[in-house]
Amino acid sequence: MTDGLLWPGDDRAGELFTDAAVVAAMVRVEAAWLAALHEHDLASSADDLQGLVGPADLPQLARDAEGGGNPVIPLLKLLRARLDDRNPAAAKALHTGLTSQDVLDTAIVLQLREAAETIKADISRQIVSLSGLADRHRGTRMAGRTLTQHAIPVTFGLKAATWLHAVLDALDILLAGADLPAQIGGAAGTLAAPTALAGSPERALDLVTVTAAKLSLPARPPWHTARAPLTRLADAFVTCTDAWGRIANDILLGSRPEIGELAEPTAEGRGGSSAMPQKQNPVLSVLIRRAALAGPPLAATLHLAAAEAIDERPDGSWHAEWSTLRTLARRTVVAGSQAAELFDGLQVDAERMAATLAAARPGIDAERRKMGDDGPYLGATDRLIDAALDRAQEKPC
Amino acid sequence: MTDGLLWPGDDRAGELFTDAAVVAAMVRVEAAWLAALHEHDLASSADDLQGLVGPADLPQLARDAEGGGNPVIPLLKLLRARLDDRNPAAAKALHTGLTSQDVLDTAIVLQLREAAETIKADISRQIVSLSGLADRHRGTRMAGRTLTQHAIPVTFGLKAATWLHAVLDALDILLAGADLPAQIGGAAGTLAAPTALAGSPERALDLVTVTAAKLSLPARPPWHTARAPLTRLADAFVTCTDAWGRIANDILLGSRPEIGELAEPTAEGRGGSSAMPQKQNPVLSVLIRRAALAGPPLAATLHLAAAEAIDERPDGSWHAEWSTLRTLARRTVVAGSQAAELFDGLQVDAERMAATLAAARPGIDAERRKMGDDGPYLGATDRLIDAALDRAQEKPC
Amino acid sequence: MTDGLLWPGDDRAGELFTDAAVVAAMVRVEAAWLAALHEHDLASSADDLQGLVGPADLPQLARDAEGGGNPVIPLLKLLRARLDDRNPAAAKALHTGLTSQDVLDTAIVLQLREAAETIKADISRQIVSLSGLADRHRGTRMAGRTLTQHAIPVTFGLKAATWLHAVLDALDILLAGADLPAQIGGAAGTLAAPTALAGSPERALDLVTVTAAKLSLPARPPWHTARAPLTRLADAFVTCTDAWGRIANDILLGSRPEIGELAEPTAEGRGGSSAMPQKQNPVLSVLIRRAALAGPPLAATLHLAAAEAIDERPDGSWHAEWSTLRTLARRTVVAGSQAAELFDGLQVDAERMAATLAAARPGIDAERRKMGDDGPYLGATDRLIDAALDRAQEKPC
Amino acid sequence: MTDGLLWPGDDRAGELFTDAAVVAAMVRVEAAWLAALHEHDLASSADDLQGLVGPADLPQLARDAEGGGNPVIPLLKLLRARLDDRNPAAAKALHTGLTSQDVLDTAIVLQLREAAETIKADISRQIVSLSGLADRHRGTRMAGRTLTQHAIPVTFGLKAATWLHAVLDALDILLAGADLPAQIGGAAGTLAAPTALAGSPERALDLVTVTAAKLSLPARPPWHTARAPLTRLADAFVTCTDAWGRIANDILLGSRPEIGELAEPTAEGRGGSSAMPQKQNPVLSVLIRRAALAGPPLAATLHLAAAEAIDERPDGSWHAEWSTLRTLARRTVVAGSQAAELFDGLQVDAERMAATLAAARPGIDAERRKMGDDGPYLGATDRLIDAALDRAQEKPC
Repeated sequence: MTDGLLWPGDDRAGELFTDAAVVAAMVRVEAAWLAALHEHDLASSADDLQGLVGPADLPQLARDAEGGGNPVIPLLKLLRARLDDRNPAAAKALHTGLTSQDVLDTAIVLQLREAAETIKADISRQIVSLSGLADRHRGTRMAGRTLTQHAIPVTFGLKAATWLHAVLDALDILLAGADLPAQIGGAAGTLAAPTALAGSPERALDLVTVTAAKLSLPARPPWHTARAPLTRLADAFVTCTDAWGRIANDILLGSRPEIGELAEPTAEGRGGSSAMPQKQNPVLSVLIRRAALAGPPLAATLHLAAAEAIDERPDGSWHAEWSTLRTLARRTVVAGSQAAELFDGLQVDAERMAATLAAARPGIDAERRKMGDDGPYLGATDRLIDAALDRAQEKPC
Repeated sequence: MTDGLLWPGDDRAGELFTDAAVVAAMVRVEAAWLAALHEHDLASSADDLQGLVGPADLPQLARDAEGGGNPVIPLLKLLRARLDDRNPAAAKALHTGLTSQDVLDTAIVLQLREAAETIKADISRQIVSLSGLADRHRGTRMAGRTLTQHAIPVTFGLKAATWLHAVLDALDILLAGADLPAQIGGAAGTLAAPTALAGSPERALDLVTVTAAKLSLPARPPWHTARAPLTRLADAFVTCTDAWGRIANDILLGSRPEIGELAEPTAEGRGGSSAMPQKQNPVLSVLIRRAALAGPPLAATLHLAAAEAIDERPDGSWHAEWSTLRTLARRTVVAGSQAAELFDGLQVDAERMAATLAAARPGIDAERRKMGDDGPYLGATDRLIDAALDRAQEKPC
Repeated sequence: MTDGLLWPGDDRAGELFTDAAVVAAMVRVEAAWLAALHEHDLASSADDLQGLVGPADLPQLARDAEGGGNPVIPLLKLLRARLDDRNPAAAKALHTGLTSQDVLDTAIVLQLREAAETIKADISRQIVSLSGLADRHRGTRMAGRTLTQHAIPVTFGLKAATWLHAVLDALDILLAGADLPAQIGGAAGTLAAPTALAGSPERALDLVTVTAAKLSLPARPPWHTARAPLTRLADAFVTCTDAWGRIANDILLGSRPEIGELAEPTAEGRGGSSAMPQKQNPVLSVLIRRAALAGPPLAATLHLAAAEAIDERPDGSWHAEWSTLRTLARRTVVAGSQAAELFDGLQVDAERMAATLAAARPGIDAERRKMGDDGPYLGATDRLIDAALDRAQEKPC
Repeated sequence: MTDGLLWPGDDRAGELFTDAAVVAAMVRVEAAWLAALHEHDLASSADDLQGLVGPADLPQLARDAEGGGNPVIPLLKLLRARLDDRNPAAAKALHTGLTSQDVLDTAIVLQLREAAETIKADISRQIVSLSGLADRHRGTRMAGRTLTQHAIPVTFGLKAATWLHAVLDALDILLAGADLPAQIGGAAGTLAAPTALAGSPERALDLVTVTAAKLSLPARPPWHTARAPLTRLADAFVTCTDAWGRIANDILLGSRPEIGELAEPTAEGRGGSSAMPQKQNPVLSVLIRRAALAGPPLAATLHLAAAEAIDERPDGSWHAEWSTLRTLARRTVVAGSQAAELFDGLQVDAERMAATLAAARPGIDAERRKMGDDGPYLGATDRLIDAALDRAQEKPC
């Protein structure tokens, strides 16, 4: 829908952050504000604003967004005109006291929260899968590799435990950044119009609190030009694709026929080639790796936008955030879903691992011999796996 | 359509690189190859492949693209099935000898070429506008500013001449990178299947040449994993938004009420605010600046993809290119169109410039006094403007 | 010393992360491990390793680092040779059980921790300064600006409160990421050699714990290829320069002679020009802004490195981290120090602010009139300032 | 010296862009201008300025660079004071008419040109090596690989020919960007002071031409805020590391023991491990890959700086360029030298390639069978190799 055809797997993100979803979220923000106004006797009627705009309006809204530099202005014009027919009192109160950035930022927050929830659910699945791999393969010996060369023996269980740590780290960082607040500050972050409307700063702040509550978002003082909430979550998204990409890279390597230790789950119609009928490509890993390669520069754009957030609303850096956040959020959701499926069905060839390890001898035992050890030389592998499994158990999600 | 609602102005890029346009380009590549096969008596029938796939097929194609990791495989399946009904001989020959990457890379090249042509046309307009500004304002004195502070006097004509140089530099670099070649190499860049089909390497190479010619593209040996043609054009795109962004930044500053030396062209419905009726925001400049901020990291992704292009086709870095190129190309086209409109209608307030210069005295004359000069202290301004105008005159486009 | 002459202000970071400091940190890690071995009766002698290598060794160490791809190998060779003269028992035990990555990663962690501590101290100073500005200027009215244009009135105190939130956000994120763990895992993260040495996994893990404690670092299972601890801190560093850069951008704008609302603290020899004696350039802001522009791509490199951390030690992505972390850490420290000085001495011209606000009338009052308000139209400004000051009071550092 | 210990191989770049080299280049620019002034009878004495500043001055210069925001101001102060003793007439004329940016930009251009020359020389060596590999191994069959899986047979000669194309592309782009001009424009790019000094714009422009000629640089109108010359060369540097990194990635893969088709040249002391005596790490490839991973974001910083180059000299983006260019230039030189050594001594195991190809049967022959071919199925391999060799022959350097 957004990356579409040129980002295979894109449909896994469903309607998240599509133009339709963003419009729906903006409408939801306007409706919440309107309801708060109504509850405070500042609007003589509320309205859920449902059914006023639809898919057919999107192209024109997109076209008209250029005029004011954002999509809120044409959306409001449309909403007001149509609402005026069914609920003129609500139409009159609509958006009063808000600024475009309040509506768009909060709508984006709603979409980001949805993305974060989806990702958390997929990470929960991944933790189960990776914990299972770590535990089941604690005795599956394989060659450890550093700088491409055989180093010393490891177990595949330990490798999976390290993967698990990477995913748990990403989850920690995601949880720390996922609780995005609503953004309501009015034209320049002073809540001047809401205060004028409500009669006092206290009541204006209460409008904010009530509106945020209706959207199930925390309230916070206006952050129009203090963008760390966005960069923090963007960094968390990238940390997720880092972790999945790091694992996908191991799987891509393990899937090479010369190595053959790992294989992706097979599925009808997956992994084929347009020219070579025999091929079974590790497509999920390829697509996850793709997301990991393309993600970090998107977060860099968001940091730059944060640094350039001058005045009470900046002249371009705010505008650079919207589509960047959408792309980053969707791609992270897509990769998270692919990773959950990949880890869940990962095939491990313990025999091939053993054979490679055997073939790597005696070189791979050089350190062992140097240390005068004559055991399997697996060190604290079991203890380290247990530590990872314990950490996974304690997860809040 | 792709950035859509969240990238106001996106519609200026029209159908360029939309899913529909990419599918149409892929179909065009397949048709060209089929025609070349037919001309070499390697297909018993040609077919222009028109009317076989349409907008209604796009969602399913996008969904099915994940299976093989690219959209060519499901497109081919669809094309073959439908072509089989109307032209079974052509259906049999379709795609024979090609690989997915041949089709997708060449289709992307077709879209990139279209983008480059559009940008060149907009730059031609810009050169006329900027040349006019440089010439008309060669005597319009204003305060030169360095590190935000008044430095010495300049003229607005010289400033426009410097802008013009930036745009001419971008054009030079664009022209050097715009002549992208077709990509046809078969499964691993050996032209093995085309050779088997055609009977000799010479005839296989001739198939490539003929196909490229049908698409009006230069031929070149397979570049599946030598991606400098793409990074070169991507860098050129970014160099364009650098130039426009650099100018937009000057205009944004000049549009500030405290400075007031420059103003954007006004247009019905442009520059309004959802909360503040008096405002006239410099929206074109804001949106151009946005593109300049967000562009460089996209080119960085393409360079990374080039560096990671291992084997005979890589495992993710190729896949990271497609949507990145689309986004970069569309945004550059959008910004180029906005910049052409902006430069064309830019309003220059010579009186305000003169007033600011007068108010900056005597400080701004400190260097002049140190040099013992008592003239307007404009140095070689006229000569430098002429040099820029002369360079603009010599442009090939 | 590293960015040196081409990054003015670089000396503010002192010896942090210089080659000498990194070598000293590596020596400290080796000494801590050696002491832990000795305490566990696994080395017949300990040694603080002081005085064995010095500044004169650095060029040769740097040259020899290429052979094995990292600086630990030549450092060890040198240490062993020289230690053998004064303490052969210690020389024999030195580094036993460790791998290069253990030593270099932990040394880098020590330097990063030092950077984080310095930054935290500078942020504490900044919080005091910004809190003072927010409080003192709660009644200092000025024009609020959005998209470069006058919007509605604000106070400078509110602007400072928003700056303060940005810095407090950065501090939150820094604190969440600053507690970097030691890295000790042996050749492939199994603790095989330490286990062989110590006789049991438990004793090997105890060696790790003791070593980490000696370095005042938390212990954690090996994270050779799970690099989120590094990316998290790198993101925090960038979030700091985002915040300072965002503020510096406001100050740069406010320092423009046409605006004149803000001025940097003056200092002997600062802000001069080689050609124009009258100029007073806002140099601190310029240099802070520079850091904010250049930082985000460095964090992107670290995320990419994390995503590419394959096998039990990767083939280049690890190597890309070291100098990137150094540059990012030093520049953040430099910018933090400059920002503390800048905020501390910032000059606010309340009269000029009032004059600009007056000149912006009646346009800037358009929303007020629309809301039917006849007060100063400052909304919840005071309450929002109080909220920021309260948040600042609760800070742990 | 700059990346130092934390960028193994850094010493291959020698003194390029060290603080000492940058100071020497700045002195050279001042001396050239002084000589031009003297030739035009505008200075009563010239001076080569040699011996006035030395290594001992660097720390103080670096410290003093913060005051004015650039290192030219303290350098001039030092030069003037010391020159006054030996040549007071020259001291009086020194720098007259120039601005800091003239001196620093042109000095950086001198260093960049030196970098480009070194890289071109290394590419010449690489072209010879890669041409030799392509030609010698035109019959060396191996498995072609796509998306990690065996595809169809190729030859190693063709792989080397593709590598060669990537390097030739990079050279083309480097040559197009290497001819950087001198930068002389005075305080705000008007040549006002030189014109005042010389008496006419014509004579001022002649001073520029003569100075550029003395530095063997082309002249061009001031480009203080039109930075495409720098971004173009930076992009070229990254295109070089893309090409080398892409090849290094193939070599890293080929060096894995399970594949074993390629090996780095061995050298005394290279490839060792601190823990595992048996290992032979492909260190050159690792370090080249590192440079390829870290390069693209640096070029992104330079593009951003170009886009932000407002006014007649910008407020931070100029300052972000210097160290970024240094780092990028040195690392590209280092990687180019390592790549030349790597390609020159690359070891190719044709037997192992043949064995892998044999083991990949019958799968790898699936396309061949589908095409009804019974030959070696190498397509136009020979012709494609010849095309690459022909292109290499025509190179200007």
